Amino acid sequence: MAQTIESIRNGVDTSRLAGTLDAFAAQPGLARFQFRASNTWLGGAHNRNHVRAFYGGLREDSTRPETFLVDADQPAILCGTDVAPSPAELLLAALASCLTTSLVHLAAERGVSLTEVTSTVDGDLDAQGGLGLAGEARTGFLSIRITFRVRGAAPAEELTRLVAEARSRSVVFDSVFRGVPVAVSTIAG
Amino acid sequence: MAQTIESIRNGVDTSRLAGTLDAFAAQPGLARFQFRASNTWLGGAHNRNHVRAFYGGLREDSTRPETFLVDADQPAILCGTDVAPSPAELLLAALASCLTTSLVHLAAERGVSLTEVTSTVDGDLDAQGGLGLAGEARTGFLSIRITFRVRGAAPAEELTRLVAEARSRSVVFDSVFRGVPVAVSTIAG
Repeated sequence: MAQTIESIRNGVDTSRLAGTLDAFAAQPGLARFQFRASNTWLGGAHNRNHVRAFYGGLREDSTRPETFLVDADQPAILCGTDVAPSPAELLLAALASCLTTSLVHLAAERGVSLTEVTSTVDGDLDAQGGLGLAGEARTGFLSIRITFRVRGAAPAEELTRLVAEARSRSVVFDSVFRGVPVAVSTIAG
Repeated sequence: MAQTIESIRNGVDTSRLAGTLDAFAAQPGLARFQFRASNTWLGGAHNRNHVRAFYGGLREDSTRPETFLVDADQPAILCGTDVAPSPAELLLAALASCLTTSLVHLAAERGVSLTEVTSTVDGDLDAQGGLGLAGEARTGFLSIRITFRVRGAAPAEELTRLVAEARSRSVVFDSVFRGVPVAVSTIAG
């Protein structure tokens, strides 16, 4: 029992994590994942994503007990009805969540117990692009900043290094920082 | 009354949208926005984003009636507890939502009534990077595909063109496709 208790750090089962790492290292195909969402327009700027099935570990995964719903809308000033976050805010949330998880797993691997991880993220944009106005700025975010507050059983310098290293472990950070090819197709009528 | 009814297309108040466009064109500073999220780690791979305040229209906006919560977790196979979508799936959801809203607004501007917009998005990744294994693939998504099904009062070719044009109006598409500078800082201890 003592071993079981000790294997949980930061809420992560480090024995299981190590087992996953070993399995993926031994058979890299296990690490190929395809994540998905399906979206339905509900009217105006309000739409809803359904998230459930994915491919990973060399199989379609159907173990999730429920379908997750993620709604998006726009604030009133951008002609929305403000019943959900904007898609731009969902992107910022995805970034904060991903870096947080990467940090927590990394710290667990290194034997560092964390007691608090919070972060604030903000991103600047010029809405002229999104509205089709001929502004000089790009349509997307001009820049994004995220600040972590981290407490745990390690010197401040080590906690700071772990956050920096978490960037290289984060799917969303890497995707947003470096960009991803996105193919858009349409079935109309 | 007839005018009021006619000004609503696709659930978008086109008179109001036109007024917003005119105001942003006349005073470009109005179009500068800063969106935000704050994140709290809840244990393991589970964390929660709070979304509410933002800056836009030359002021702090506090008109939202509530704080939106966006949770993230990891699926069981990636050592999570599967109580919420993964951050990678939130990114895909943000992309589908943003392109959908861009399409709906663009169609409303052009006088095209839509009756159905659904989409499916998927993205491939190699989880070795995120787990710190020395794979050859990048940590982020290798590629993302999104397919729209659109019905409305326009020929299929026009609907397809509108989807293609929506890319240039989408904050999240532009951010993910082209990448964004992201600064990460830490307050530790």
